[in-house]
Amino acid sequence: MSESPASTPEPGGEQPPQDPAYTAAVIDLLGAIAYGELTAFERLAEDAKLAPTLEDKVAIGSMAAAEFGHLELLITRLRELGGDPYAAMDAFRVGFDDFHAHTRPADWYEGLIKAYVGEGIAADFYREIAAYLDPATRDLIISSLEDAGQSAFVVDRVRAGIAQDHRLGGRLALWGRRLMGEALTQAQRVAAERDALTALLAGGVDRPGLDLAALGRMFTRLTENHAQRMADLGLDA
Amino acid sequence: MSESPASTPEPGGEQPPQDPAYTAAVIDLLGAIAYGELTAFERLAEDAKLAPTLEDKVAIGSMAAAEFGHLELLITRLRELGGDPYAAMDAFRVGFDDFHAHTRPADWYEGLIKAYVGEGIAADFYREIAAYLDPATRDLIISSLEDAGQSAFVVDRVRAGIAQDHRLGGRLALWGRRLMGEALTQAQRVAAERDALTALLAGGVDRPGLDLAALGRMFTRLTENHAQRMADLGLDA
Repeated sequence: MSESPASTPEPGGEQPPQDPAYTAAVIDLLGAIAYGELTAFERLAEDAKLAPTLEDKVAIGSMAAAEFGHLELLITRLRELGGDPYAAMDAFRVGFDDFHAHTRPADWYEGLIKAYVGEGIAADFYREIAAYLDPATRDLIISSLEDAGQSAFVVDRVRAGIAQDHRLGGRLALWGRRLMGEALTQAQRVAAERDALTALLAGGVDRPGLDLAALGRMFTRLTENHAQRMADLGLDA
Repeated sequence: MSESPASTPEPGGEQPPQDPAYTAAVIDLLGAIAYGELTAFERLAEDAKLAPTLEDKVAIGSMAAAEFGHLELLITRLRELGGDPYAAMDAFRVGFDDFHAHTRPADWYEGLIKAYVGEGIAADFYREIAAYLDPATRDLIISSLEDAGQSAFVVDRVRAGIAQDHRLGGRLALWGRRLMGEALTQAQRVAAERDALTALLAGGVDRPGLDLAALGRMFTRLTENHAQRMADLGLDA
């Protein structure tokens, strides 16, 4: 479904973790992913309350628990890198909290779309960045983005919902666009604030980075993947 | 800390899972434990919002995720026994939901106490019952009650809180008593409603059960363990 960043012209980096600036940037990035997983866990647990059946509730709860499992791996790695996991996460608190405050699902379906679309955008973005990192960090990030069948569950439920009520499709399509807009707004703000992260993306003398053209291509891939996910749900992007 | 039911005169049963009445009772019991784990997951995720620090939030989230992991094992086992996991859980919905509706924590500390004391009472009770079941079911139940260091976390936080504000101790002691009272009220109601479960406890021609005297001893152990947990927190039972 999503184009692999590995197929892009920008090669994966092999930076030694000894470089303090590089380590600081990785700690920053893992902190962002970790705080994102924590908020995703909280949001999913909240959405579980809206589940129409016990089975649906367990399915959403299982997504929440999976996010938490990833979070625990990230915290362990942050400690290994000599970082304070909670300080690293705290730096991204405002951005993620604002995103969630601006995108509170009004019902079960909006919660499902948010879980699916939000996870998808975040996963695409982190995978793109991971391509520039050392293999150990890259593998950790990729494995923390694993989908344990949750997408299939969401697609099934949303398609069934739209089949029963066609007006739902229009509302959810708008909702998907709003989620994408809010995600971009917050990502831009975080990028502007976090120097270590942007330096990581820009590259250095001894390692490749993203120039403006590459950044443009990455952006194109993110929006294309989002459109594909919306199409999988039976929605206009 | 808690007296093991294995040291009581009532021996563990070795009922073959082929007995339909026995299987129905086990499905009932696992359904109760499973629904309890699901609601514990939901409550802990809710309590995580009250956490004063990110570290505390992650600690509570980790307890929630652990409950969910147990739930998944129980659902698998319910399917193996030929039961409908969601129907089995649904039978206990009212009892657990009422318990939670009557015991909403007003703050972070009440949430901690509820997690610790509620878990403790439930775990003691299920362990007592597990002693009368076939080894496979017993092992599943025991492992679903594992404490992954959560108790130590709660005891540490509550003791630190009381050290800072002595009035907190009095309020939390009252809260602990209320939790125990509500738990007993709901357990009694469930026992009165679920014939298969009470038949299981009463035993049969070919397997030992609890007579009134044994039930009394079990009750004594439950309240003693509760008092011990309150003492561990530095609270009067």
